[in-house]
Amino acid sequence: MIVVLRPEAREDEIESIMGRIERSGLKGVLTRGSERTIIGVVGVDPVLPDLRDDVEIMPGVEEVIPITKPYKLCSREFQSERTVIQVGRVKIGGDGVVVIAGPCAVETEEQILDTARAVKRWGGHILRGGAFKPSTSPYHFRGLGREGLKMLSEAGKEVGLPVITEVLTPKDVELVVEYTDILQIGARNMQNFILLDEAGRTRKPVMLKRGMSAKVEEWLLAAEYILSQGNRQVILCERGIRTFESATRNTLDISAIPLVHKLTHLPVIADPSHGTGKWYLVTPLTLAAVAAGADGVMIEVHPSPDTALKDGAQSLTFDHFADLMRRLAPVAEASGRPIFST
Amino acid sequence: MIVVLRPEAREDEIESIMGRIERSGLKGVLTRGSERTIIGVVGVDPVLPDLRDDVEIMPGVEEVIPITKPYKLCSREFQSERTVIQVGRVKIGGDGVVVIAGPCAVETEEQILDTARAVKRWGGHILRGGAFKPSTSPYHFRGLGREGLKMLSEAGKEVGLPVITEVLTPKDVELVVEYTDILQIGARNMQNFILLDEAGRTRKPVMLKRGMSAKVEEWLLAAEYILSQGNRQVILCERGIRTFESATRNTLDISAIPLVHKLTHLPVIADPSHGTGKWYLVTPLTLAAVAAGADGVMIEVHPSPDTALKDGAQSLTFDHFADLMRRLAPVAEASGRPIFST
Amino acid sequence: MIVVLRPEAREDEIESIMGRIERSGLKGVLTRGSERTIIGVVGVDPVLPDLRDDVEIMPGVEEVIPITKPYKLCSREFQSERTVIQVGRVKIGGDGVVVIAGPCAVETEEQILDTARAVKRWGGHILRGGAFKPSTSPYHFRGLGREGLKMLSEAGKEVGLPVITEVLTPKDVELVVEYTDILQIGARNMQNFILLDEAGRTRKPVMLKRGMSAKVEEWLLAAEYILSQGNRQVILCERGIRTFESATRNTLDISAIPLVHKLTHLPVIADPSHGTGKWYLVTPLTLAAVAAGADGVMIEVHPSPDTALKDGAQSLTFDHFADLMRRLAPVAEASGRPIFST
Amino acid sequence: MIVVLRPEAREDEIESIMGRIERSGLKGVLTRGSERTIIGVVGVDPVLPDLRDDVEIMPGVEEVIPITKPYKLCSREFQSERTVIQVGRVKIGGDGVVVIAGPCAVETEEQILDTARAVKRWGGHILRGGAFKPSTSPYHFRGLGREGLKMLSEAGKEVGLPVITEVLTPKDVELVVEYTDILQIGARNMQNFILLDEAGRTRKPVMLKRGMSAKVEEWLLAAEYILSQGNRQVILCERGIRTFESATRNTLDISAIPLVHKLTHLPVIADPSHGTGKWYLVTPLTLAAVAAGADGVMIEVHPSPDTALKDGAQSLTFDHFADLMRRLAPVAEASGRPIFST
Repeated sequence: MIVVLRPEAREDEIESIMGRIERSGLKGVLTRGSERTIIGVVGVDPVLPDLRDDVEIMPGVEEVIPITKPYKLCSREFQSERTVIQVGRVKIGGDGVVVIAGPCAVETEEQILDTARAVKRWGGHILRGGAFKPSTSPYHFRGLGREGLKMLSEAGKEVGLPVITEVLTPKDVELVVEYTDILQIGARNMQNFILLDEAGRTRKPVMLKRGMSAKVEEWLLAAEYILSQGNRQVILCERGIRTFESATRNTLDISAIPLVHKLTHLPVIADPSHGTGKWYLVTPLTLAAVAAGADGVMIEVHPSPDTALKDGAQSLTFDHFADLMRRLAPVAEASGRPIFST
Repeated sequence: MIVVLRPEAREDEIESIMGRIERSGLKGVLTRGSERTIIGVVGVDPVLPDLRDDVEIMPGVEEVIPITKPYKLCSREFQSERTVIQVGRVKIGGDGVVVIAGPCAVETEEQILDTARAVKRWGGHILRGGAFKPSTSPYHFRGLGREGLKMLSEAGKEVGLPVITEVLTPKDVELVVEYTDILQIGARNMQNFILLDEAGRTRKPVMLKRGMSAKVEEWLLAAEYILSQGNRQVILCERGIRTFESATRNTLDISAIPLVHKLTHLPVIADPSHGTGKWYLVTPLTLAAVAAGADGVMIEVHPSPDTALKDGAQSLTFDHFADLMRRLAPVAEASGRPIFST
Repeated sequence: MIVVLRPEAREDEIESIMGRIERSGLKGVLTRGSERTIIGVVGVDPVLPDLRDDVEIMPGVEEVIPITKPYKLCSREFQSERTVIQVGRVKIGGDGVVVIAGPCAVETEEQILDTARAVKRWGGHILRGGAFKPSTSPYHFRGLGREGLKMLSEAGKEVGLPVITEVLTPKDVELVVEYTDILQIGARNMQNFILLDEAGRTRKPVMLKRGMSAKVEEWLLAAEYILSQGNRQVILCERGIRTFESATRNTLDISAIPLVHKLTHLPVIADPSHGTGKWYLVTPLTLAAVAAGADGVMIEVHPSPDTALKDGAQSLTFDHFADLMRRLAPVAEASGRPIFST
Repeated sequence: MIVVLRPEAREDEIESIMGRIERSGLKGVLTRGSERTIIGVVGVDPVLPDLRDDVEIMPGVEEVIPITKPYKLCSREFQSERTVIQVGRVKIGGDGVVVIAGPCAVETEEQILDTARAVKRWGGHILRGGAFKPSTSPYHFRGLGREGLKMLSEAGKEVGLPVITEVLTPKDVELVVEYTDILQIGARNMQNFILLDEAGRTRKPVMLKRGMSAKVEEWLLAAEYILSQGNRQVILCERGIRTFESATRNTLDISAIPLVHKLTHLPVIADPSHGTGKWYLVTPLTLAAVAAGADGVMIEVHPSPDTALKDGAQSLTFDHFADLMRRLAPVAEASGRPIFST
């Protein structure tokens, strides 16, 4: 942490700032320039939010500049080798690109089973399907709940694919854990800290979607909540951020993928379906995400998108999904990391 | 809802779209132009999300354009007179501007009581103070919990002010309801739909903060969740949106205040403390919000901002608060709505 | 400028960085902490962009943090008393709030003269009207050019109001200077640096609108272009920034007004017409801007907005303008700064 | 265009709206629903901005919804086959991916010639280099001007590569045309309409960068300015948009690439150097852009980025560029479109 002083800062103000720093068990090093005087704060613990807030408003202070990352357990400095998460026989974050696919919401036994078969057939690795759906309007479909969980779980078993599904609230964590292989925490819940705590207390892998307006640093701090509860199996998922552009539903931030790989050891996948909101953009953005180094992708697939209860406009048909897998294989290979195979 | 057809849409495609519309109990009216053909969908129910999603991806369709608002209970068309919410002797949304003030977080009995006295003394109407704090980092202060609730409630009683405090998760709603006069739902939880449902089942007034990246329509839909559960006492709170500008913590969207007044009958207040993140911007933005028609403001006040555990940089001292109240009185009066008095 | 080193930075790397700093005639002061080592760069000149860029990518460097403002002539540190700009008998930035009003575009002699009379009658101080219009589409109305300038200038003289009009390109500066009292540079041209240079070489006051996605710092740097050419008469104009919210045309950043007053000595006014894009939001946002300390406002007024060639939806009728002025007077007074009068 | 009426619209208001539409030579078709009445406007000409603005504010009107694209010459409906632009022996928009590379700014003869050789050696097709540089601060390097143009042109000839360079202002167009093979219009000038007109009157290919906060539609309208002046050789360049995320300099909007290909016949390339602002993100984002279907990329390369006068932090060394080309080849091939070769 660096404290920049105002040009007119008085000696007694500087002393008082130095005192406050030292009372925190840290050391302040003063550098007087012709234009500005600064205090470098040095010490052991990287996380000093209260001190920072305090010093920021002391008389004589112009600005406080943090210089260490506020997260720790998920940083590459803490763990340099990449985390690989094993789900059944699938490895996320390892040598192969993983494809998660399925409908936005579980609707019927037939719908999820048909989709599971198609996902399996065309080479997908994990089946997705929502039983608890966040919905912008209270009048929209909100998911089948426990029944949906069962259908998803059974469809996964039937075809031999692990499953992933979203949990919306702390009290459902126990229930969802029973049926799923990976817990998904959605964009709208990225800063639902009580839910993060609760997911951190389970021993299931957690996929944490980036919030619609979350900076990369905030996203990693949300992951840190889960890690700091003892659960080290976190998969990050870039799903598009909200910008001024309305031609796409969100702006898929592809640059976040290599950036996150530099900052953290956790695997990161992309969700081009929510990221774009338009089915005809899903395949090009899938290829882009994998070329940029994504550990996997999550794709919405539906037997008949035009009757889907949720997000039909961004879902692929089985034929489109087959085509996506065919086009993905050579690009994944060429990017130095083929599609995962056991 | 209007369906815009592609120039090359075939007759059988058009028939199929008309059929889908009619199966929903609605009527499609076809208009053939030289350039484009459109279908106007007419009927009774304003909310047809599934139909819209379906039609959007049918062959021959270029675009679907909604023409009715997706919320109902909170719209001015549903209720033309403004909702006035009574809390103790204070009326929010009535003839007077209401001032809510207090520390970001309850820290000690003395801190909250001193602040309560200052808020009361300088003319504030409601005491705020957080006992459950959302915090970006798991290593930061997260509030005193039940102890904090008690301190807040007692301080309010001591000085004769109703209180407001935040609830973070559904299972705490019952506890918080016991101690507070108004439930606050924070920006990060604006789309925590399970929490909205739960708050909607209480009979306490709820202050719903706008999400960091929530469009006005999404904010009103979140309010609709609470209203549709039977709780009609919702206060909206504009607290700044996230934009590219980093010189302020958020961008307080003052224009949302008169806009929301046009769209809904619910009262709307502003939070210039979170909205700007800088104490020296709080007073000018308070005056601006009230001049623009806000029903009230929520202000962070702290006995010694430089030792505050949370958000010191945006808190006012008691002296600053007194000054704010002195400057607010004539502006509120001049804007046609004096500071509330019983 | 502060250079933060990587934990693993080697001694020879540090020496090489220190060398680079010293070759620029500056001094580096090394502070070794247990966690991070930093170099404080001290010296005379505040602007060292090349050095910063260079050092940022030297081996061993984690980050470079600037600590001085990149602008100088427009900063309050350079000039502490506020700049007051005199246009005819009107003072902008002085004790009174100034109202600039008129149509978006000059259309006919009658239209501009009628409007000028209404502006004058209801207490406006300066007449606006575009002769060169930036237009998103090449197929839209682009202004009457020189004819429009003449009409505007004559209408101003007829009623005794100074005039302001936009200039789009360097080669028109000479022409526009001939007819106008204030040169306006629009949001789309805020970083048209050649135009800024040219406007800086005139001795006319320049109103510089904030770019749609300009940070406050970039806006002040654009002003610095004009000042550094010798023209110190710059008026800043906040006209709304582009955000994710589409319910208003732009988001008028009211907090920028007091912020800019803190950073610079230049006057700042608000344009609620472009800032909101909706006529019914113009009056509340005008009151808000003035309550927040704006030195003035710029308002679109048109004899019959429903036949206006440009921006009818955000223009006030004469009646609405009269009403705005009536409501503004007490709010301006209550905010400590009445409407300007000679 | 569709006009949505207010529920309370009166018959005489409706007649007046119908009249206004018919006076424009168009036809209004009325559809009365139980909830809303709408008027579909049908006719020949797609561009009716004034009519739209007019009708929007007529009594009885709730909203006006445009249904045709506001651009024409650059739309795929106007020209279905893709535009291929020939520059020397290089084809942009054809079967191969084109690589444009070079320094941000031309600094010395040696610097540009060394870079030209490296670009040529590792398989780049076009040499870039700025002689007129837009700079946020008036105190930064602004380019060598005519001298820089000469150096660039000679370096291109020496190694046998066509060149591209930016033009900042209309009066320089003639000069720049003399020395360059492609005119570049930068992000800050995307809506410098006078410059667009001027570039449209030349017969040189123009590369038009997307503005920092330009929607895709506005970008295409800016291209339409150039096309409507008779110059059909426009190359679009996605260079990152401004969002709330500050970890990267901009957010490269990869989804804009396939989207633009759907909307227009013009070629589109990506600029991952400006798009990310960090050299270590340039290669992954280059691969991503090409995988998503970009017709080419523009890359900053510099002999010694740590001494570069501009944008060193985002420039690749020659070694990094060689590595990028090696990694790009298989990905381009796998994406169905190899690196361009004559």
